[in-house]
Amino acid sequence: MEIKTLEDIKLNLTERSKINDIDFENLSFGNVFTDHMLVCDFVNGQWKQPEIMPYAPFTIEPSARVFHYGQAIFEGMKAYKDEAGDVWLFRPEQNFARFNKSAVRLAMPEVPEEVFLGGLKKLIQIDKEWVKRGDGKSLYIRPFMIATSSGVIASPSNNYRFMIILSPAKSYYSGEVKVVIADHFSRAANGGIGAAKAAGNYSAQFYPTKLANEKGFQQIIWTDDATHTKLEEAGTMNVFFRINDTLYTAPTSERILDGVTRKSLIELAKKENINVEVRSVLVDELVAAAKDGSLKEIFGAGTAAVVNPIAGFAYKDEYFELPKVEKSYALYLKEKLTNIQNKVADDTFNWTVKI
Amino acid sequence: MEIKTLEDIKLNLTERSKINDIDFENLSFGNVFTDHMLVCDFVNGQWKQPEIMPYAPFTIEPSARVFHYGQAIFEGMKAYKDEAGDVWLFRPEQNFARFNKSAVRLAMPEVPEEVFLGGLKKLIQIDKEWVKRGDGKSLYIRPFMIATSSGVIASPSNNYRFMIILSPAKSYYSGEVKVVIADHFSRAANGGIGAAKAAGNYSAQFYPTKLANEKGFQQIIWTDDATHTKLEEAGTMNVFFRINDTLYTAPTSERILDGVTRKSLIELAKKENINVEVRSVLVDELVAAAKDGSLKEIFGAGTAAVVNPIAGFAYKDEYFELPKVEKSYALYLKEKLTNIQNKVADDTFNWTVKI
Ligand SMILES: Cc1ncc(COP(=O)(O)O)c(C=O)c1O
Ligand SMILES: Cc1ncc(COP(=O)(O)O)c(C=O)c1O
Repeated sequence: MEIKTLEDIKLNLTERSKINDIDFENLSFGNVFTDHMLVCDFVNGQWKQPEIMPYAPFTIEPSARVFHYGQAIFEGMKAYKDEAGDVWLFRPEQNFARFNKSAVRLAMPEVPEEVFLGGLKKLIQIDKEWVKRGDGKSLYIRPFMIATSSGVIASPSNNYRFMIILSPAKSYYSGEVKVVIADHFSRAANGGIGAAKAAGNYSAQFYPTKLANEKGFQQIIWTDDATHTKLEEAGTMNVFFRINDTLYTAPTSERILDGVTRKSLIELAKKENINVEVRSVLVDELVAAAKDGSLKEIFGAGTAAVVNPIAGFAYKDEYFELPKVEKSYALYLKEKLTNIQNKVADDTFNWTVKI
Repeated sequence: MEIKTLEDIKLNLTERSKINDIDFENLSFGNVFTDHMLVCDFVNGQWKQPEIMPYAPFTIEPSARVFHYGQAIFEGMKAYKDEAGDVWLFRPEQNFARFNKSAVRLAMPEVPEEVFLGGLKKLIQIDKEWVKRGDGKSLYIRPFMIATSSGVIASPSNNYRFMIILSPAKSYYSGEVKVVIADHFSRAANGGIGAAKAAGNYSAQFYPTKLANEKGFQQIIWTDDATHTKLEEAGTMNVFFRINDTLYTAPTSERILDGVTRKSLIELAKKENINVEVRSVLVDELVAAAKDGSLKEIFGAGTAAVVNPIAGFAYKDEYFELPKVEKSYALYLKEKLTNIQNKVADDTFNWTVKI
């Protein structure tokens, strides 16, 4: 690695910003990108000089390994603007560490901190105007890495491209979310790549999710693939279950993504004196709790949606509607968390990092 | 679908063939591509006109779904030249059917036969000179499809690109192949995408394979991820075990690719009066057979390698060397199969299709 300081990032800035063409009040998630992106290539065992350049398509070989053997990983994080106009990241070192864990699991090179975090900060400084304030607004950050070597032979690539693209965002989900509990399909294997933020994991989810959508459900809660008895996580969210006044969430494992929102909510809940237990909840237990009325809430937790209350779940052709609770843990914890992220509450955890 | 005949394929041919630059005696697998490729885009719910054009890099959005959510599938097949100079495919309808099964599992559109098989034949006619004869030579054919819509939101793409690229090939493997029996890592989940030829499956294998390589083993034989007791398949090959004079191979399942070579070898073995049983072989059974001397052979079967004899296997730090057998089923069946493929034996099965 030659990159030692941010001065080592090559800058090639746009002559005309697109920002005035954007309607920030009517954004659909993940579709609009800012003026610039960061690109850094790994060639012959070395990371080259990163470059910040105008966001644009790039050329790639039809035989690039990413298209054939799926070496592709990513992260998802957000930047927030405070009242003074300063921009903040939320626990970025967590995403950086997880990205490199994903890289190892997919036999890809680890990205140096100067490129990932240093590059990210520099890029956001340049596109600072794209970070808006209020109403769930933020800048969604998508670092990713793909295998670029040519060759249709099933072995790891030699060359890779790391990129960061930025997308202005409002809140992710809208409307009621109903889920299906998986009883046949799975997203991850024991000893597989479920704990990595690998592109291939998502491709496994789309078809079962489409089947669920056709029945009027928006998401699936995945179960362990061996027995389909343990509740694990949703497509892009970890999941919490509130039974009576205790919150439960599955332990992370090789099959489950170690979500930053999940771990932050666990710490927040503890601080707020909400009982939280990290253990597998069984499907049977959930159904029983739904039947006897002790199941109060289910919610997803992830960077994009932050906290996403779930209105009901289906399991094997039975549907269970969740009660309307008065003091929702989901909404309470969401407010606590977004207040920290948006810098309107004290960040006693030291989670936020100023750019 | 508007494509009805091969006349509907747009031709944009190269002005200068690269063929004279290629040393066909010294090819490494999957690294050299012929003069042309086929490209066909799926846009707004419709397949557009396919185009055959010079093999070249293409441009794509950094936010294309394939890079983030892994919607990417492929096939691997070969074309062979007979003594008269005619070019033949081997059971191409099998690859076509499997491709569309993979497409369904990954929530991608099915490719019409006129585009997949029609396009393939037209492309190979144009690059016919690249198909060489003898010495394991063939033309490796790589149809694939990727998700091209822009947007970092975890849902299926609207747009897709189907492509076919061609690579002149010699035999795939060289040297002795020793394998490790997986006792922790896995390539596929129950209810997952293991039976699809999906890019994501391969990305899961590289890291464990790298660990195996470091210990002097070339490949891994995967086991079921729930118990690691059943032998399943290798990275790019189905696997056969010969115990005494019976061949065993695992049944195909949601976790295992339904290989064309595997099913052809089963039929060939039956014709040649070799006992073949389709059932799961347990790891314990394999170890016991290795110990008591009844294990005679293990071999992989796949398009690239055709048949690949395995010299020994490791399981949990014990290594078992396979005996040298006099009449190897692996080599016998390989010869029978390649003779059919190379059109030097009668094709009583009607497997070969002339282009
Ligand atoms: C599969 C999966 N689970 C959980 C999460 C939540 O993780 P985080 O809170 O770090 O965004 C994500 C990412 O958003 C995910 O893709
Ligand atoms: C995982 C896997 N198993 C088995 C095979 C063998 O299939 P086929 O004989 O159709 O090439 C392949 C493909 O080559 C494969 O990728």
